[in-house]
Amino acid sequence: MKSHGRLSIRDSLQPRDLMAEPQVKGAWTAQIITLFPEAFPGVLGLSLTGRALAEGLWNLRTTDLRPFGIGKHRNVDDTPAGGGAGMVIRADVMDAALREAGGHLPVIYLSPRGKPFTQDRARQLASGPGMTLICGRFEGVDQRVLDAHGVEEISIGDYVLTGGELAAQVLIDTTVRLIPRVLGNQDSLAEESFSDGLLEHPQYTKPALWEGRAIPEVLLSGNHAAIASWRRDMAERLTKERRPDLWRAYGETRMDPTKDRQLSGASDQARDYRE
Amino acid sequence: MKSHGRLSIRDSLQPRDLMAEPQVKGAWTAQIITLFPEAFPGVLGLSLTGRALAEGLWNLRTTDLRPFGIGKHRNVDDTPAGGGAGMVIRADVMDAALREAGGHLPVIYLSPRGKPFTQDRARQLASGPGMTLICGRFEGVDQRVLDAHGVEEISIGDYVLTGGELAAQVLIDTTVRLIPRVLGNQDSLAEESFSDGLLEHPQYTKPALWEGRAIPEVLLSGNHAAIASWRRDMAERLTKERRPDLWRAYGETRMDPTKDRQLSGASDQARDYRE
Repeated sequence: MKSHGRLSIRDSLQPRDLMAEPQVKGAWTAQIITLFPEAFPGVLGLSLTGRALAEGLWNLRTTDLRPFGIGKHRNVDDTPAGGGAGMVIRADVMDAALREAGGHLPVIYLSPRGKPFTQDRARQLASGPGMTLICGRFEGVDQRVLDAHGVEEISIGDYVLTGGELAAQVLIDTTVRLIPRVLGNQDSLAEESFSDGLLEHPQYTKPALWEGRAIPEVLLSGNHAAIASWRRDMAERLTKERRPDLWRAYGETRMDPTKDRQLSGASDQARDYRE
Repeated sequence: MKSHGRLSIRDSLQPRDLMAEPQVKGAWTAQIITLFPEAFPGVLGLSLTGRALAEGLWNLRTTDLRPFGIGKHRNVDDTPAGGGAGMVIRADVMDAALREAGGHLPVIYLSPRGKPFTQDRARQLASGPGMTLICGRFEGVDQRVLDAHGVEEISIGDYVLTGGELAAQVLIDTTVRLIPRVLGNQDSLAEESFSDGLLEHPQYTKPALWEGRAIPEVLLSGNHAAIASWRRDMAERLTKERRPDLWRAYGETRMDPTKDRQLSGASDQARDYRE
């Protein structure tokens, strides 16, 4: 069994090795059904998610769809019933792969037809045992196998990808960083975008003056209340300007006193930025 | 110079080789500023986007942010002005990397604070010369460098990733497949989700009967008008149920006669699904 100690990500990780058996029993598991198993771990093998994978905080498994295909050429797809462009993945082929993958995790099909993925859904998934993800290609998957397995359809956004593999990686990355101990600093989670229904305020760091541009004075004041108020103001202004949809939803809940509790902790450190 | 002939993706591609110089002059170019250049091409080196990269239909370049860092340790970030968790990428460091990358492409910063990415924006980007993408990490990038370079902020969805690399790959994948000749069958583009403001209808393929579940009779009827009408009906029902936001927008434009033209071409093939 390979060592699960701290690794220098850049130098030592053999990405596919991160997925080697035996996997850590009881750890959160992402299981992928795909025609491109070599797409994994991909970006997930780097940085925080890669280190967490090496440390056994989560497992990543792929099931190659191809061997479940039909005939000599292991065909996984056929033309759409009723005509039209492209190819559709067969119900019987996907069903065989799902049975092989095992049935204890919720099954999600990444598709632009799905419900939009949100930070809330990521939190729910992070608190469960894991997920089985179906990566589509071509025109999609036969609807009957999605119905038969009670598959949830999730979309990462209103655009069309060449396949579900990148969408799967987005779901996994977003979810895995919410698993306890994956992110070094849990404070970050409370402050970031969407945690309070607003986009995050702008950020600045040293130097205090750069190319004639100064850090807003209030941020260097050491006045915590003024800083929190400025940040909230900027977050509200940004949300109103860029995301009228989020702004409306925020307006409906801003009278809720739990919001204020979350926001008042936004700044509890003072630092000196005058160099 | 490496050969740009057709490759068997699974067997022959050396993913990083796809990014080797010399790059094809005049081809659409994605240029990435990242702390993890090894994350590329990642999934983009496989399948359609990988083949198109090998064929010189687009270029992919990475600029490593690290060498532009400050001091012996090449620090790229510092603590947020005004306090708070996490680290912020310095304006001077990002500015140096942007200058090195060159200035002829629009610059986009992947951030949950950005405007939502859409299929329309992908079409615009595909018809331009390419894009320079800034991949954030930590709490974000100093606002002043974004202001100074007129950087556009784009979000791929309402969730938080560990870094911008996956979001960059999503933008590139979505955009590159819209570049002429990348997708084999251009018909697929006209029919898919969002092309007419609706989610796509369900798909079915052989066998006609699977585990007691039949393909809807109308799809096997050969009646093109009935099939088009059923598909539109299903697309409308699905959109109404899953995406009230898209449904409202669709309602506002459905009297527009250009919509009907797009939809009537949905089925121009008859196939026999009775085996």
